[in-house]
Amino acid sequence: MKHLVAIDWGSSSLRGARLDAMGSVIEERSFARGVLRVEPGRFDKVFDEHFGDWMQGPDVLCLVSGMAGSKQGWIETPYCPCPARFEDLRSHLTWVEGRPIAILPGMTCKHAGIPDVMRGEETQVFGALHLIGRQDGLLVLPGTHSKWVLVRSGRIQSFATVMTGEFYALLRHQSILARSMPADDGEFDGPAFDQGVSVALSSRSLMQTAFSVRSLSLFDRVRQAALPSYLSGLVIGDELRSQMTHGLDGGGQVVVIGSDALTLRYERALSQQGVTVQQVGAQACWRGLWTLAQALQGEVAA
Amino acid sequence: MKHLVAIDWGSSSLRGARLDAMGSVIEERSFARGVLRVEPGRFDKVFDEHFGDWMQGPDVLCLVSGMAGSKQGWIETPYCPCPARFEDLRSHLTWVEGRPIAILPGMTCKHAGIPDVMRGEETQVFGALHLIGRQDGLLVLPGTHSKWVLVRSGRIQSFATVMTGEFYALLRHQSILARSMPADDGEFDGPAFDQGVSVALSSRSLMQTAFSVRSLSLFDRVRQAALPSYLSGLVIGDELRSQMTHGLDGGGQVVVIGSDALTLRYERALSQQGVTVQQVGAQACWRGLWTLAQALQGEVAA
Repeated sequence: MKHLVAIDWGSSSLRGARLDAMGSVIEERSFARGVLRVEPGRFDKVFDEHFGDWMQGPDVLCLVSGMAGSKQGWIETPYCPCPARFEDLRSHLTWVEGRPIAILPGMTCKHAGIPDVMRGEETQVFGALHLIGRQDGLLVLPGTHSKWVLVRSGRIQSFATVMTGEFYALLRHQSILARSMPADDGEFDGPAFDQGVSVALSSRSLMQTAFSVRSLSLFDRVRQAALPSYLSGLVIGDELRSQMTHGLDGGGQVVVIGSDALTLRYERALSQQGVTVQQVGAQACWRGLWTLAQALQGEVAA
Repeated sequence: MKHLVAIDWGSSSLRGARLDAMGSVIEERSFARGVLRVEPGRFDKVFDEHFGDWMQGPDVLCLVSGMAGSKQGWIETPYCPCPARFEDLRSHLTWVEGRPIAILPGMTCKHAGIPDVMRGEETQVFGALHLIGRQDGLLVLPGTHSKWVLVRSGRIQSFATVMTGEFYALLRHQSILARSMPADDGEFDGPAFDQGVSVALSSRSLMQTAFSVRSLSLFDRVRQAALPSYLSGLVIGDELRSQMTHGLDGGGQVVVIGSDALTLRYERALSQQGVTVQQVGAQACWRGLWTLAQALQGEVAA
């Protein structure tokens, strides 16, 4: 088995890991050189600057997931439609000419005729399922644009993007609500967060519940320092409400792929619905790329 | 009957009208001197600068609605709780010391224990109902913070604030979606707007549907120049979806108080639900204050 150089090239950051034949991480690197910070035509150069030393020798394969395959990225790699197994992505790879470097496609699906897209999250999803030994599940990748991904029999059936993190940032800092809140987020306030989740779950639109940040503050019903936590509960609660169509109303389990801090908030919010959480961390991406490399082994060795 | 000086002192603008004994507008003025642009303690002065000449003579009464009664306003005037008739506001007025000028309270109500507030819209609602000769109705005041107001037997029963205009502005100019859209809104695109409304009505959260601005643009499914209209449809559609609890699913009528351009969009969106619209314009506020002045007449004449 070749050594694998696994790359996660996102919008704002460029991360890489060198894995041994067993899939263990030998070394990791991370740079603030996301796709949006690389000039067109300079991707080869930027890659070599940061990972060139890892590509020495005949036994190296490199797989790149994330925004590197987007229009603004290294080489545009069209989306693979759902439903699809991870192995199906092999026929959608784009190889960098003359080099053992392949760029993964993103995936696309439709909700009532309207397309949705992701790039990179599919790799984390398959990696996470591999790590926990499952073929089925509802997986959540919380963040600026959260992804909810439904997997059945090893196939990504569908997914949805929810702009939770971005809505939080807009409301927190750019909206009229910012005037009611302190400049810094301060300490996380659990009860205020829970109240926000509860209000959102029993409502129908964040555009209505968001105004309660202002009205609760007018009546001093939530102390100012706790309002950012309350708002965080409102947006995460609204996200959960929108995804409860997956039959979670009566409990169940979701796999959350993300950092500890964010996962804890989702776990706390989901517990209000009787839903439990299994967490998988950042290693999901490396495991995903390693799994795909295994599947490619025969082809590439030729 | 005294002459009435009717003032609508909002956050960003200061508007006034002089009415004769029959409630007809003799003269109107408008200034960019909203409550947020007046220093504390300077409200008397600013008022006199702009309307002092209207206050000459013994037979003048002035009623002020809007943010003048807020904490940041002229004199804080506590909210009147729902349900309430317009006449009930009389006992909640704050008189400017030694002058025939009264500031109206705002109103407050609760949804599942969470307070909501408005200042000024109650005056427009009562004025609009008086103009069209009704005691009952669901009224909408579209805008930065839209208000949906339910009136039964002449009483405001409850209302809801929906931050539609503000969400539109944030998404249009501050979010990642701004990159997919042209700098200027350009001409209104009806079919794109209708599609946005339809997508929002069949969805559960704007945080999910908003991302479709990006994905539709990635696949060139909606032309770039039409995306602002599509986004406008998404937010107005989400607002309607959140207010369909008022039994509007099967049709009905709402009264829209607002400008022609905005009313046309709401009328277009509501027609997808079989709901018809009756429009009332800016004169609703003057009529509301004149009606209240009539009710006060006996008290003030003393």
